Amino acid sequence: MARIPVAVLGATGTVGQRFIQLLEGHPWFEVAAVTGSTRSAGRTYAEATRWVLDRPMPAAVRDMTILGEDADLTTPLVFSALPSKTAGDLESRLAAAGHVVCTNAGDHRMDPDVPLLIPEVNPDHLDLIDVQRRRRGWSGAIVANPNCTATPVTMTLRPLLDQFGIERVMAVSMQALSGAGYPGVPSYDAIDNVVPYIGGSEEEKLETEPQKMLGMLGDDTVIAAGFVTTAHCNRVPVLEGHLVCLSIAFTQRPEHAALDAALRHFRAAPQELQLPSAPAMPLVLRDEVDRPQPRRDRDAGNGMSTVIGRIRTCAVFDYKLTVLGHNTIRGAAGGSLLNAELMYARGLLT
Amino acid sequence: MARIPVAVLGATGTVGQRFIQLLEGHPWFEVAAVTGSTRSAGRTYAEATRWVLDRPMPAAVRDMTILGEDADLTTPLVFSALPSKTAGDLESRLAAAGHVVCTNAGDHRMDPDVPLLIPEVNPDHLDLIDVQRRRRGWSGAIVANPNCTATPVTMTLRPLLDQFGIERVMAVSMQALSGAGYPGVPSYDAIDNVVPYIGGSEEEKLETEPQKMLGMLGDDTVIAAGFVTTAHCNRVPVLEGHLVCLSIAFTQRPEHAALDAALRHFRAAPQELQLPSAPAMPLVLRDEVDRPQPRRDRDAGNGMSTVIGRIRTCAVFDYKLTVLGHNTIRGAAGGSLLNAELMYARGLLT
Amino acid sequence: MARIPVAVLGATGTVGQRFIQLLEGHPWFEVAAVTGSTRSAGRTYAEATRWVLDRPMPAAVRDMTILGEDADLTTPLVFSALPSKTAGDLESRLAAAGHVVCTNAGDHRMDPDVPLLIPEVNPDHLDLIDVQRRRRGWSGAIVANPNCTATPVTMTLRPLLDQFGIERVMAVSMQALSGAGYPGVPSYDAIDNVVPYIGGSEEEKLETEPQKMLGMLGDDTVIAAGFVTTAHCNRVPVLEGHLVCLSIAFTQRPEHAALDAALRHFRAAPQELQLPSAPAMPLVLRDEVDRPQPRRDRDAGNGMSTVIGRIRTCAVFDYKLTVLGHNTIRGAAGGSLLNAELMYARGLLT
Amino acid sequence: MARIPVAVLGATGTVGQRFIQLLEGHPWFEVAAVTGSTRSAGRTYAEATRWVLDRPMPAAVRDMTILGEDADLTTPLVFSALPSKTAGDLESRLAAAGHVVCTNAGDHRMDPDVPLLIPEVNPDHLDLIDVQRRRRGWSGAIVANPNCTATPVTMTLRPLLDQFGIERVMAVSMQALSGAGYPGVPSYDAIDNVVPYIGGSEEEKLETEPQKMLGMLGDDTVIAAGFVTTAHCNRVPVLEGHLVCLSIAFTQRPEHAALDAALRHFRAAPQELQLPSAPAMPLVLRDEVDRPQPRRDRDAGNGMSTVIGRIRTCAVFDYKLTVLGHNTIRGAAGGSLLNAELMYARGLLT
Repeated sequence: MARIPVAVLGATGTVGQRFIQLLEGHPWFEVAAVTGSTRSAGRTYAEATRWVLDRPMPAAVRDMTILGEDADLTTPLVFSALPSKTAGDLESRLAAAGHVVCTNAGDHRMDPDVPLLIPEVNPDHLDLIDVQRRRRGWSGAIVANPNCTATPVTMTLRPLLDQFGIERVMAVSMQALSGAGYPGVPSYDAIDNVVPYIGGSEEEKLETEPQKMLGMLGDDTVIAAGFVTTAHCNRVPVLEGHLVCLSIAFTQRPEHAALDAALRHFRAAPQELQLPSAPAMPLVLRDEVDRPQPRRDRDAGNGMSTVIGRIRTCAVFDYKLTVLGHNTIRGAAGGSLLNAELMYARGLLT
Repeated sequence: MARIPVAVLGATGTVGQRFIQLLEGHPWFEVAAVTGSTRSAGRTYAEATRWVLDRPMPAAVRDMTILGEDADLTTPLVFSALPSKTAGDLESRLAAAGHVVCTNAGDHRMDPDVPLLIPEVNPDHLDLIDVQRRRRGWSGAIVANPNCTATPVTMTLRPLLDQFGIERVMAVSMQALSGAGYPGVPSYDAIDNVVPYIGGSEEEKLETEPQKMLGMLGDDTVIAAGFVTTAHCNRVPVLEGHLVCLSIAFTQRPEHAALDAALRHFRAAPQELQLPSAPAMPLVLRDEVDRPQPRRDRDAGNGMSTVIGRIRTCAVFDYKLTVLGHNTIRGAAGGSLLNAELMYARGLLT
Repeated sequence: MARIPVAVLGATGTVGQRFIQLLEGHPWFEVAAVTGSTRSAGRTYAEATRWVLDRPMPAAVRDMTILGEDADLTTPLVFSALPSKTAGDLESRLAAAGHVVCTNAGDHRMDPDVPLLIPEVNPDHLDLIDVQRRRRGWSGAIVANPNCTATPVTMTLRPLLDQFGIERVMAVSMQALSGAGYPGVPSYDAIDNVVPYIGGSEEEKLETEPQKMLGMLGDDTVIAAGFVTTAHCNRVPVLEGHLVCLSIAFTQRPEHAALDAALRHFRAAPQELQLPSAPAMPLVLRDEVDRPQPRRDRDAGNGMSTVIGRIRTCAVFDYKLTVLGHNTIRGAAGGSLLNAELMYARGLLT
Repeated sequence: MARIPVAVLGATGTVGQRFIQLLEGHPWFEVAAVTGSTRSAGRTYAEATRWVLDRPMPAAVRDMTILGEDADLTTPLVFSALPSKTAGDLESRLAAAGHVVCTNAGDHRMDPDVPLLIPEVNPDHLDLIDVQRRRRGWSGAIVANPNCTATPVTMTLRPLLDQFGIERVMAVSMQALSGAGYPGVPSYDAIDNVVPYIGGSEEEKLETEPQKMLGMLGDDTVIAAGFVTTAHCNRVPVLEGHLVCLSIAFTQRPEHAALDAALRHFRAAPQELQLPSAPAMPLVLRDEVDRPQPRRDRDAGNGMSTVIGRIRTCAVFDYKLTVLGHNTIRGAAGGSLLNAELMYARGLLT
């Protein structure tokens, strides 16, 4: 079977590099084009890219010539690793021109007719594509994946909301350095330190994106889930893996065993469809008292699982627990890729 | 004026080393005796101590012979840096024998007749000493300082409870490695990692000690403050300085300016009495969006101030903010020392 | 084909864990027994082991009962991850009893009749086994792998000594924390710091082991190679991967291209025999100006390659360069495993 | 006594910040002007500066308006924290206009008529100022301090060259992140890693600057010292403090005790003149087997001492040892400041 050619926008940055890495040897998709800034365009990928990942650059892209960001693309599927703010207009133009754009950028996430998608959480939101096309007159489409911290939090909340209802969430994150891109956080700020702030309205995203994803699909839009979240976001000296402490007030307080079972047995569309990048277990529960830990647990399910631990009673809300997600795999490029795989399996890429 | 001779129990450990360091050149107190484990007893302090602090070992103690832990002491004032569980009985014996014991250990903290003391927070709790002596028939006394994370949290809550009332507190800590002593956390667990758990019932301490300190002194005991706290405690790769994210629900929600002013203008007994180790400002407010940071702010007020920042509205409670305290100075040896200074100023050491 | 059952001595420590990890799914060998300290004996491997590696514990060993260190073993092949000094006698007894012991411990390394073996460097030294058996009356044998820093240095020197002769070597190492085992280096010593010293006569090992391995096999012993080495060993805050700066004075100074080619084209017995753990390239040359880097290059060849970079003229000797080896894979358990694979391929395990 | 007004060029960068910090409360000099890039000019120092040091910004400079880099200055003394390459021409113009420029930049360091000065090493090289003025027709002057790694190496070699003669030096550095300025090294490159390369011809500087400083002053120029140095420079995850492993071949190999004494008893002009920033001991010897360590020893002598340890026999040269210097204090701003203090004490600033 011929693989679908794909383009990666912003392919030289850290998220772009993750796309390139995750697409290496992919059974359905094949990198056919890469774009970059004016500085990079015209050079080969190997020349223009300061490759920062620990595994080597895939051979297949080394000699690919980088296109300018506004180049005419011929691939039906486009992955966008563009930075927010510059991504929005370009992605719209590509969707208007018939491309399906799976984007990691924040610009369109909260557009009412754009699916903000985690395949395990809200696969039905893909129906918004019809609304989007009708309203905007596009033949293509934009599908966004959420913020890297919102991702593991929302995956955790999905079965809990369904079974017990959720009223209030308190979330305090300890986020990895890679979330700031490259060069990102100066080492002089990072070592022996924590920075209790993350720019780009990180806390607001964590307070609003989960509600959209966990919302009900109405006629033409999503009715956001009704719980309230407060977020504190911190940068810690960790390379990869965002850790989040959660306290949750439920509509109906479950027994501990029921809470545990709801998380442990959670499976969803990607597992049923056996999507290539889907982890066998979307939620991995660790029983040890000191897990999850970013370095030891971020690669669970090849970086596509959310790892959960320390489930215990909360003196203020009902339960507290700790969740971990790999921020540049499931929380960025891997999330977008899984979205595209779901669309492919649903026949939306043909 | 002759300085009061003091003994330091457990003087070779990390908290013991901080006592030795902070007592160097102290105007009121002078190290006259140091005790250590069986392994150390009989050797000089310089020989027996694996000195880990960044400033050099004070010359005055280098040649002091380490006494056994059950040696007869002649100093009226004793600082205890003993580990919890082994500390309790020994401290009781010393108090019975007429010594005033200022202890950093946890064993007696929640005893109803033992002052759990932060001089800025509850100096009146020193009146419990009379109760303690009466009940136990002691001529000495035990005064405890709180857990290292509870310290900056309680200092922050003091003016807020007084002016606005507090109902609920959510606290998530990112704690420094030095809190685990030496050798403490293996580097193989610490680098590129966070451990979402701290042994020794750390979360329980943070959920109960503040209420005792912020409680009202009744006839013979303290009536604990009525608010509820939930705590998540994490170990991060930081050398010194515990950072805590707080969300607070007040009895009467203050305006932002009133909240800010309550913190900014807070002064208390140590400042009025100009105790030698008292910081000019017990609470230091930073207006920058990304402060406090452990490495850059832990030394505020020579490690005796609590540094506060990021005061903003909380979507679930009323306000959220971030606080920082130096865990081995104000949160341990420096806290005990300030307690002793308050007792001296109040005439309780003569 | 039935796999050869093997025992792992000292299986619960960090090197022991690496043996367990590397033996998972091995085509020739199968873990049949694990031994541990008195504290661990009798418990299952999962219960007794504080597993510290980033990938999970292999399922096959979880329920294996740990034997005492002096248990009677029935496996023909034994891997020893015992600490030096306690290893020596026990290994001798096992060899006397007919076991082939591939050991990572230092005790027997410099014994004249014990092969100190890197399969790419001195496979012919296996002939010492006959000497060893004859002299000691053993039916088994002991084969040692070298010190973790000596390993990449010796692999680098092999083709250079052969082609150009070596007179003098200056080696300055920057060694990873995992080299000290677990708990090993306290985090309070490691963060924002370098310790310019490594215990256990590390520098002496680096100054003598390469000469033995690179020596000529005489009648009954090895005539050590004649060059002189000086070593400075440092501990840096890196998790895995020992980096070494080398300056080398050659007998015949090669052209840069010849030096480069000698390293780049080096292949040896493990590659020819296609041993299961052999890397395709024993020496990997990086041309970038800032490589090798521990985090980005330690996994080359699954941690079995030595990575070399920065080859340039030395103002004092002839050339200087930087080499890197994975200290707990090739430099410890993986090195022992490759030794056993070579013995198997040579028919020495039957 | 009125203090001499000084200007700091490039005052907002990390070296500039160190100048500002070290000049706070200086007995002889007073910051009267600060310059910055076009982006900063016209703003106050507090507004324009991303202050990264751990101690707070001095109050005296907060409201000072930043001048453009080519502003007319009226201060007799100018400290230059400009980056190399942009510094050279501007410094020449200022010297021509009558200013004494003490510069940390590399541009003029190797000019034959510019003193490359460490007051403990070559105070007599100040005589080059006459040559400089005569040749260039300047009324001011340029005096440079050396590279941050060359500084502790040269201080160490001074008494050794004088007493024993030096033939060859092998130097391998482990350099702190702050040496790269701010933002400098990305944290994603620094954590769990070493980068075996430092840009800006770091190794060449370390191979040539010491010889100039240790050279004899001839009629109109310096005759460089005759020994040969080879350097390997590495970046390690340390905040401040450059550590260097040295192997030295002497003209006359000293006894260990004589070598030790030569270092331990070394005193020079700054100590005799009691310059305000001079450390009591320019060279501090540590006898512990595992010192110097960057974090624990960099602040010796307020960051102005070189700390030396691990003196032992070298198998290839005569001796090996490890030295440490604080790279942004003695190795940059503090070095320049001490140079100015020497000039003041010698009457060259009036």
